[in-house]
Amino acid sequence: MQVETLRWRDGRLELIDQRRLPLEFEYVACADAVQTANAIRAMVVRGAPAIGCTAAYGVAVEAQRHAGAARAQFDSALEHAFKVLAASRPTAVNLFWAIARMREVHAQTRNESTQTAAESLLALARQIHGDDIGICRAIGRHGAPLIADGARIMTHCNAGALATAGHGTALGVIRSARDAGKRISVIANETRPYLQGARLTAWEMVQENIPVTLVTDNMAGHLMQQSRIDVIVVGADRIAANGDAANKIGTYTLAVLAERHRIPFYVAAPLSSIDSASADGSAIPIEERDAAEVTGFRGVRWAPEGVSVANPAFDITPAALITGLITEKGVINRPDASQIRGLFGR
Amino acid sequence: MQVETLRWRDGRLELIDQRRLPLEFEYVACADAVQTANAIRAMVVRGAPAIGCTAAYGVAVEAQRHAGAARAQFDSALEHAFKVLAASRPTAVNLFWAIARMREVHAQTRNESTQTAAESLLALARQIHGDDIGICRAIGRHGAPLIADGARIMTHCNAGALATAGHGTALGVIRSARDAGKRISVIANETRPYLQGARLTAWEMVQENIPVTLVTDNMAGHLMQQSRIDVIVVGADRIAANGDAANKIGTYTLAVLAERHRIPFYVAAPLSSIDSASADGSAIPIEERDAAEVTGFRGVRWAPEGVSVANPAFDITPAALITGLITEKGVINRPDASQIRGLFGR
Repeated sequence: MQVETLRWRDGRLELIDQRRLPLEFEYVACADAVQTANAIRAMVVRGAPAIGCTAAYGVAVEAQRHAGAARAQFDSALEHAFKVLAASRPTAVNLFWAIARMREVHAQTRNESTQTAAESLLALARQIHGDDIGICRAIGRHGAPLIADGARIMTHCNAGALATAGHGTALGVIRSARDAGKRISVIANETRPYLQGARLTAWEMVQENIPVTLVTDNMAGHLMQQSRIDVIVVGADRIAANGDAANKIGTYTLAVLAERHRIPFYVAAPLSSIDSASADGSAIPIEERDAAEVTGFRGVRWAPEGVSVANPAFDITPAALITGLITEKGVINRPDASQIRGLFGR
Repeated sequence: MQVETLRWRDGRLELIDQRRLPLEFEYVACADAVQTANAIRAMVVRGAPAIGCTAAYGVAVEAQRHAGAARAQFDSALEHAFKVLAASRPTAVNLFWAIARMREVHAQTRNESTQTAAESLLALARQIHGDDIGICRAIGRHGAPLIADGARIMTHCNAGALATAGHGTALGVIRSARDAGKRISVIANETRPYLQGARLTAWEMVQENIPVTLVTDNMAGHLMQQSRIDVIVVGADRIAANGDAANKIGTYTLAVLAERHRIPFYVAAPLSSIDSASADGSAIPIEERDAAEVTGFRGVRWAPEGVSVANPAFDITPAALITGLITEKGVINRPDASQIRGLFGR
């Protein structure tokens, strides 16, 4: 089954409601940029590449609403769309990358009719969307040779089809390894507080009959200590110019454990997740999310009243702990600033 | 408020039902050894010292039931009690330590009336119970000087009043530091899957107005990386002769992170948690619990059908990662076999 994380239907953007998975599978529609920004903020859709695609369509859907309107009104609506979408979540750089590309086309079409401009913006959103699947397949192709036959692969959060336009980044590597005939199994960390591992990665793997074992996040060290993990592959929300990688909270801990146990630790991400403007990880903003995500889940509260909460959604893994960065342009070992610059030069 | 984790009332053992905390506070009664073993297995009561006290009362309550019966019947009932209680959970050594002490008294009173034997067994259970609070206070007294004024203390699971007869081991150190006038704050890891940190440690700290911040287990590395943790104090379920410590799953990961960040990592536990028969951590059995604890919580399921689960309840922290072991006999730095033997010689 090919997961269609987002799709364009009847002039609107439709997103799988990932908050309800795996219990329910349904699409929600976004008819304007504000609805799209709200869907990103509420994590109807999540995963850096998927957020980038969604933001592009969020601009496109707003442009469609005002296609045929006067230029001033069109430009003002688009400017508002850029702003609300950019304010939806702070860490995944693909969001800003996609918005910047849409801004460019908006600027290039300023002498065209608003109808034509809207068409060009939709065409670019479709292109970003279509490119993303190809990019994930290339990541998978480059990453698959790093996975040994029989490997027990740990992954964190969901860097799967649901986090992208399809196929996935970390799970793209896993899918491609399986497609290459390797007998692999996956250990999925549940990934509190939002449980993307338990809900989304486990669901994707079950759908594809890839053997998957679910564990709580705090079991990773024990499993590595017991030699039950051969390799770790995760995604990234933003990679700094020096190779430091922001990814879902808990990723840094896995990298520290992997180093101690000499387990290869790979980050799989498209070039659109690389932020050359961030010199290193300390420049990457870490989103702090709502306390209610930690005090319970889906309206069930288990923590007592009166407790404070910290809820950073991401952490930074220093480049020195990353065995290799798997991109659509190939794999770079022990990423550093010079190699990362090289990716863009090819 | 003094938490009375277990109490003897009207000839029965009563336990706070820790499964329902913090939403509900109620006692459940155990009228025989089987009910007591079931309460331990179902985690109505948990925490190594509390399990030891509970098992002692579980023998005592069975003895009371058969007080006045013929000796053969009494002995057979007691033998059954020892067996079902010993089979309730495998890792906490305090369980076996308490049962061994009860067995001794049973043997010593074999020429007495069953009435007298039952009274002696109850007296020992009461003594184990009473001693435990004093032991925890001694642990607190020895541990408090290790906590600096203003310290931000991370703890895992619940090694508190609820895990003991009162005061707690790790939380005993924290309480004693606070009582010594230190302005401290606690960072409690929620401790999936059973959420003892979110439910029990957070509740104990809120009750006592000790500032507490709840985080998910996978946030620990990030907080250490950001220099937001000054010291870590945890309990133990069993300590091997060489100082390796079994404790709630996730403890090993914290110790690895603490070493990287040069954060002192203390284990607080009574001598009854030390198992001289286990040469090192590899000899300690690790309980594997039910998959349903990982696929959801309290009947709410969020993982898809078809997923496998691993659910080890404990892990082993090598002695080399332990800054100090805090016992009722004092603190030993960098515990090893010789120092641990020394604790019993004093």
